[in-house]
Amino acid sequence: VDALIVVAHPEPRSFNAALADAAADTLRECGWRVQRSDLYAMCFDPVLGRGDFAAPQNPELLNVSLEQRHAVANGTLAADVAAELDKLLRADLLVLQFPLWWFGMPAVLKGWIDRVFVSGVTYSRRAMYERGKLRGKRAVVGVTTGAPAAAFGRGALHGDIADLLAPLHRGVLGFTGMAVLPPYVAHHVPYAGAAERAAMLDGWRRHLRGLDALTPLPMPRLEDHPELADDAFHRGAA
Amino acid sequence: VDALIVVAHPEPRSFNAALADAAADTLRECGWRVQRSDLYAMCFDPVLGRGDFAAPQNPELLNVSLEQRHAVANGTLAADVAAELDKLLRADLLVLQFPLWWFGMPAVLKGWIDRVFVSGVTYSRRAMYERGKLRGKRAVVGVTTGAPAAAFGRGALHGDIADLLAPLHRGVLGFTGMAVLPPYVAHHVPYAGAAERAAMLDGWRRHLRGLDALTPLPMPRLEDHPELADDAFHRGAA
Repeated sequence: VDALIVVAHPEPRSFNAALADAAADTLRECGWRVQRSDLYAMCFDPVLGRGDFAAPQNPELLNVSLEQRHAVANGTLAADVAAELDKLLRADLLVLQFPLWWFGMPAVLKGWIDRVFVSGVTYSRRAMYERGKLRGKRAVVGVTTGAPAAAFGRGALHGDIADLLAPLHRGVLGFTGMAVLPPYVAHHVPYAGAAERAAMLDGWRRHLRGLDALTPLPMPRLEDHPELADDAFHRGAA
Repeated sequence: VDALIVVAHPEPRSFNAALADAAADTLRECGWRVQRSDLYAMCFDPVLGRGDFAAPQNPELLNVSLEQRHAVANGTLAADVAAELDKLLRADLLVLQFPLWWFGMPAVLKGWIDRVFVSGVTYSRRAMYERGKLRGKRAVVGVTTGAPAAAFGRGALHGDIADLLAPLHRGVLGFTGMAVLPPYVAHHVPYAGAAERAAMLDGWRRHLRGLDALTPLPMPRLEDHPELADDAFHRGAA
């Protein structure tokens, strides 16, 4: 069984890097084959655009979804995207590790999704949520915050972190059919001392060792919305 | 009065570009001085990292917030970031125009925020929400979707678009103290014909002409959370 860890932090000695290392070690101990995409170390380019399509179907007007499908069919996807897509498709488990920046992913990780989750391969208009093309895979998010745990939750200053992660959980991972496991959140990291950091690393290791016992988050189901069956979703280029 | 329109779409002839043009024309007609940052046309680099800090305080270990403060104090911020920050600080109104990609912003726009909303200038640990350093400014989002309007809303397949935009509305714009006006959403754009597109452009023009009559979205208030007063938020680099 294969796992892919994608990590997005500009500092190789960051706590996010330590969490990614812990994840790799723990998963290997549990029998997983582990691949890792360190987006900063790879200098991964997160900007989806014409550069992704060396032999476009329509050089005049870029329609991202159509060009993604055309490029996959013709084997002309940009090499860096094709390599990451291969890793993603091979993985039974996707681990995303990142610091919460502005209540979301760092741009380099958002762009990894923009570019690598290509139309027709990870989803289509009739293949989303329970019919998504990545069904059968699991995904789990590891995230760090700068704010204390008390700043998050229903009625707390920043709101529930589940709501902040919903666009990723529901709109990317669940959307493409993956079973989305509960995230692991390490709070207040810039202010954490060595003992607290060790405890947070341990918590992440336990979380990953116990993956099989975790209940996936509830997701929308296309079959509950027959009114949309003909034309439910298309990212489009508009 | 100054407006800054930031647009993020890889196709210069896209409907997003048309919406940005309509916004610029309409705001000028209403007496605004308009600046525009077309992130794709500018080849804006969205990856926040060591490159932002030519003369770092700590070359050994990157702490983003601390280096941002240090760079601002010493005038050593990367030139592209400094130029965008100047535009942002001069603007009384910020307009963000983008296609909804994976339930969020395209990476290039997320990275514009990651890099340009620097610590100490747009917010600080004690200056967020109603005390945010960009208070007095207004912000409004224009967004396009590929899915039909019926796919969004409470109980609809993709959920309420207000929830999808909350990390941006609350976590970036409201967080830094801006008054966040209701967004303008153009649905189902890849499938819209000329008449529908014209109607959506008109709707956006009306939205912008009527800005002064729009009620800002409710935002969290730091003063409602005295328990966090000492240590409420810090993005950190961990």
